[in-house]
Amino acid sequence: MKINFLNFILVSVLFVGSFCFASGSAVSSQHEITSTLLWIVIILISAKISSLIERFGQPAVLGELITGVLLGNVALLGISFLEPMKNSQLLAFLSELGVIILLFQVGLESNISQMRKVGFRALLVAVVGVVCPFVLGAYLVGPWLFPGLAANAYLFLGAALTATSVGITARVFKDLNTLKTSEAQIVLGAAVIDDVIGLVILAVVSAIATVGAVSLAGVVAILFKAIAFLTGSVFFGHLLAPMLGKVLSKIHTGIGMKFALALSFALIFSFLAGEMGLAPIVGAFAAGLVLDPVHFKYFKKPKISEELEKVRNIPGRMEIQKIASLYTEKHVEDLIEPLAHFLVPVFFVMTGMNVQIQTLFNPKVLLVSLGILVVAIAGKYVSGCFAGKVNRNIVGFGMVPRGEVGLIFASIGSGLGVINHEIFSVIVIMVIFTTLFTPPILTYLIKKERS
Amino acid sequence: MKINFLNFILVSVLFVGSFCFASGSAVSSQHEITSTLLWIVIILISAKISSLIERFGQPAVLGELITGVLLGNVALLGISFLEPMKNSQLLAFLSELGVIILLFQVGLESNISQMRKVGFRALLVAVVGVVCPFVLGAYLVGPWLFPGLAANAYLFLGAALTATSVGITARVFKDLNTLKTSEAQIVLGAAVIDDVIGLVILAVVSAIATVGAVSLAGVVAILFKAIAFLTGSVFFGHLLAPMLGKVLSKIHTGIGMKFALALSFALIFSFLAGEMGLAPIVGAFAAGLVLDPVHFKYFKKPKISEELEKVRNIPGRMEIQKIASLYTEKHVEDLIEPLAHFLVPVFFVMTGMNVQIQTLFNPKVLLVSLGILVVAIAGKYVSGCFAGKVNRNIVGFGMVPRGEVGLIFASIGSGLGVINHEIFSVIVIMVIFTTLFTPPILTYLIKKERS
Repeated sequence: MKINFLNFILVSVLFVGSFCFASGSAVSSQHEITSTLLWIVIILISAKISSLIERFGQPAVLGELITGVLLGNVALLGISFLEPMKNSQLLAFLSELGVIILLFQVGLESNISQMRKVGFRALLVAVVGVVCPFVLGAYLVGPWLFPGLAANAYLFLGAALTATSVGITARVFKDLNTLKTSEAQIVLGAAVIDDVIGLVILAVVSAIATVGAVSLAGVVAILFKAIAFLTGSVFFGHLLAPMLGKVLSKIHTGIGMKFALALSFALIFSFLAGEMGLAPIVGAFAAGLVLDPVHFKYFKKPKISEELEKVRNIPGRMEIQKIASLYTEKHVEDLIEPLAHFLVPVFFVMTGMNVQIQTLFNPKVLLVSLGILVVAIAGKYVSGCFAGKVNRNIVGFGMVPRGEVGLIFASIGSGLGVINHEIFSVIVIMVIFTTLFTPPILTYLIKKERS
Repeated sequence: MKINFLNFILVSVLFVGSFCFASGSAVSSQHEITSTLLWIVIILISAKISSLIERFGQPAVLGELITGVLLGNVALLGISFLEPMKNSQLLAFLSELGVIILLFQVGLESNISQMRKVGFRALLVAVVGVVCPFVLGAYLVGPWLFPGLAANAYLFLGAALTATSVGITARVFKDLNTLKTSEAQIVLGAAVIDDVIGLVILAVVSAIATVGAVSLAGVVAILFKAIAFLTGSVFFGHLLAPMLGKVLSKIHTGIGMKFALALSFALIFSFLAGEMGLAPIVGAFAAGLVLDPVHFKYFKKPKISEELEKVRNIPGRMEIQKIASLYTEKHVEDLIEPLAHFLVPVFFVMTGMNVQIQTLFNPKVLLVSLGILVVAIAGKYVSGCFAGKVNRNIVGFGMVPRGEVGLIFASIGSGLGVINHEIFSVIVIMVIFTTLFTPPILTYLIKKERS
């Protein structure tokens, strides 16, 4: 396009015009907003570039995590202008939205009847995967590596080793299109069961640490609330989902309404979960499960299928079919996908950014951490042996990543003043390694299984 | 799906699991995040329901604004749980993102060479549309309706009448698929020129109000910064856009990368605009203009077109073409659209929510406001007469809405203590009416023009 003078004037005028708004921007916290825009760009671009790691057969999530670790630690090189990102409420929210969208997607792709099939094995895997690391961490390796600490410290260390991070594993299976395999379903089921047991453990150890005794009433209350929420949402979910499906399949005025309804369905479940003291992402996962694709069978047949019927008998139908296949299946997953492209990387990059590399610089801490790391991996790995007739290596390693969950334990523990900075660092390092090294290992195992 | 016991156990376990996270949520401001999830649902659902107003030939934006006004004033009925929404930083950010996405879309759809054609007429319309309301408001109707106020008050009142809100009008033209008409291009061009002049006026009146004199240096500095930003982004924009276009057209690994790059392009421009003290949305609009579709001609030919080439000579090609037409044209606009479905309604609903209906309850204020409203409409309407050989009514009314811009003037004026609460209310009412009543009038005129 030739840049002539008039054009120049016009565009210049366009830009100068902005000041009028700029004056108003003084009203809101415009600066935070504008810098957040830059941060989003940094996250998106670096995440997408790093996702080229897929070319080497690695899942994109690994690239995003590493990118996050790098971005979060460039301060060590004196580049500190990214530091505010770590404390940005806006990024924290986008990242939360991101993991909600991800778990909603995972829920949509998870087949609940399939999950029911593996339910019992998942339970076994989960229990073993919690008991082993906890016992090892709290009663054997912990006291051995950190002699002379309060019993509570060991309890928290053990507790921090229990919960699997469903986000990381789910994303790896998703990246490799193996979410529907028995292994994936067992791991997903076990991961959430882990969280239950982990929760109970956390409630117990917190109680011991604070009031010095287990408040059974508290635990019961928690369980009761959860069951109440569950029954409620399963009941209403299965009441609503079919209606929603019918509504969605009837709407033909663009994707706007369908998109809004599907997204709202996920968000309302997340909200309710949050209100009940549950994690929003569990609500999102449940929303995905409840929003069983079967309710969308009409919705799943876009206009193109009808068109195809009309041309059934002409030659070249196969070509039409082929072309159509490029564009059919416009259902909920597809509506949510672009949003996921925007938000999901934010979660994983931010997760990576919270990793403090300097914790690795203390040799003693590092050494001890490796010991705990072995416990963390071995404890989960053995659980795979109870997965029945599936690839037990995949299940075992699928259970390894701790991600943000372990960090949550650590932060609560240090918040209660139960664990010292050393153990905190150790937990953080354990999380770093289990989070960063599981994706490549899991990828290798899955590819081997395929071949 | 049958809800059997094992399923029940599994899902229940799933939910209880969430507590583990919940405990951690204590670390972040989880409550604000979860309630924001609900607010988003409320905004999305009510916005989409209200957008059914399209069935009656009205633009969706009108429905969203009215929804916002209702949501923002249910407190008058004693329903106060929505009040926190107005002060939510997170919603403010999503709404800012929304208007950025909207202006990016508008920029993408605006034809810059077309805009150049109407450049001069837009300038004329803009100048008249600023001078008339300002003179009328500041020197005639203002002093007549509010006798005995300081001169500065009248100046601010006049200034508040000058700037057109590009967002509202652009959305109306967009809703009616008439963005590419000369009328739309003139109004868009004039609206941004308005902002320049409005900016200069604001700078001047602010200077008079504060230091009692016009700081020419300040005005010059503003202009200089703007021109600098402009030349820079036009230059680099036209350097980058083609490259970006080539890159995007070469990428075949899903839409993720394309989406990220396109979105980042818009956000980086918005950020730079914000950094220069400009409004981010102007950067977004510029990004859209610079990202001239011509650079995406390859990008605009998705895989399906190549497929079509292969089957050129078989019978039934027309059917294929027909089917293909349902799915081709997968370019930037399409990538951004789902995000727009999520964020744009947030902006308009939030804009509506900031409308305080109770300001209408004071008869005297209401009466005076109607006088100012007449000035506001007439002053802009006459500008349409300078639009040349186009539908002058459309241009005239297209210039009427003031939206957030007028509110910005008002808030700055009262911030400086120059205008009293009465005039503030008057300005707010003027904004309400010009914002709420322009869409239907404009829609009527455009439909009449078509028929």
